[in-house]
Amino acid sequence: MSVYEKLKALDVSLPEMAVPVAAFVPVVRAGDLLFVSGHIAKKEGKPWIGQLGSSLSTEVGKEAARRTAIDLTGTLHAVTGDLEKIKQIVKLMILVNSTPSFTEQHIVANGASEFLQEVFGPVGAHARSAFGAAQIPFGSCVEIEAVVQLR
Amino acid sequence: MSVYEKLKALDVSLPEMAVPVAAFVPVVRAGDLLFVSGHIAKKEGKPWIGQLGSSLSTEVGKEAARRTAIDLTGTLHAVTGDLEKIKQIVKLMILVNSTPSFTEQHIVANGASEFLQEVFGPVGAHARSAFGAAQIPFGSCVEIEAVVQLR
Amino acid sequence: MSVYEKLKALDVSLPEMAVPVAAFVPVVRAGDLLFVSGHIAKKEGKPWIGQLGSSLSTEVGKEAARRTAIDLTGTLHAVTGDLEKIKQIVKLMILVNSTPSFTEQHIVANGASEFLQEVFGPVGAHARSAFGAAQIPFGSCVEIEAVVQLR
Repeated sequence: MSVYEKLKALDVSLPEMAVPVAAFVPVVRAGDLLFVSGHIAKKEGKPWIGQLGSSLSTEVGKEAARRTAIDLTGTLHAVTGDLEKIKQIVKLMILVNSTPSFTEQHIVANGASEFLQEVFGPVGAHARSAFGAAQIPFGSCVEIEAVVQLR
Repeated sequence: MSVYEKLKALDVSLPEMAVPVAAFVPVVRAGDLLFVSGHIAKKEGKPWIGQLGSSLSTEVGKEAARRTAIDLTGTLHAVTGDLEKIKQIVKLMILVNSTPSFTEQHIVANGASEFLQEVFGPVGAHARSAFGAAQIPFGSCVEIEAVVQLR
Repeated sequence: MSVYEKLKALDVSLPEMAVPVAAFVPVVRAGDLLFVSGHIAKKEGKPWIGQLGSSLSTEVGKEAARRTAIDLTGTLHAVTGDLEKIKQIVKLMILVNSTPSFTEQHIVANGASEFLQEVFGPVGAHARSAFGAAQIPFGSCVEIEAVVQLR
């Protein structure tokens, strides 16, 4: 199955690329690498507000990470025109808005990692760092940035 | 206008490159990419101490981010010998020393992003992640690292 | 002395590469760059739990960072088959599990930076960002990711 067939099988529709409200751009290409700006978790188009360890459960955080990976995939589709042009999802940095006592950032982050492997297969096998941020812009619960290699 | 003319028009003078006091270097080149170490915000040559959400306002944090971007530009000048050799400011990671309730990291970060776009024009259009750190070395309020591509 | 001779002189034995328990991989290669996943600090094979500023001293944190750099070197050995194939340790991101008042992340991080320079010499001279994370997966006290260039 192609990436798009897998997305359809998962009943995932990709969103439009969000244009940053600030003085930066969603993606910069350098050689065959795409550096993708941090995408914050959104729900119904608005920042998905909450902190793991207090207002949000690990399961909800994992779902937020999955949704953020979908948004990021939407950005990659918009920028490449064809997700099959992606050679490898190289690296993710996954920030989890965390209280000082929440220690399951890796489980939250799996929401994103599992989605990308499900959709991209071996192309989606990435290196990753996940950790707790003191806060995230707009109070969002998750933020994900990526480095992606093109064919 | 050249980058240097823009800096002059903004009345910005670049500082000397700060030599890290530790076992690392300010910049490493790999191929045509420069990986620039995290620069902490400084005021009058000393760490600009403070935390957003308590001791510092968003406006002051934004000014600290702008000053840090100036210092980082000074490092790039020292390393390249000529800022016109820069093809693209590829990516910034902007850490904002934040209390658990401060959620305007993106506004603070704009202090750096807007400066770079002002000075470098399209060459300064970068991808970015901004988020809240629990603390930053020396208690500084902002830290910025960068990936830069050379021509 | 070769890298392996230096390791022996330091009485350091490299561990096996830890296979992530999640949907990601330890290292991804893109061109001549290796992107290495965040390695959390471990003690006797288990997460080295603690937070700087409360349960752990700066000295212990520095030792944890050194141990994490050893583990990361073990991963690089497993992936490359020969550490002499490394052209440059390009960049480290060093996260220190910190209370809001702990400001010596740079000293903790030196545990990793000094080890890499000791073992790799000029090849180990890297760019770096170090900062305080609100938490780290499993409650570990330190997490380190790396970008490495191959010859």
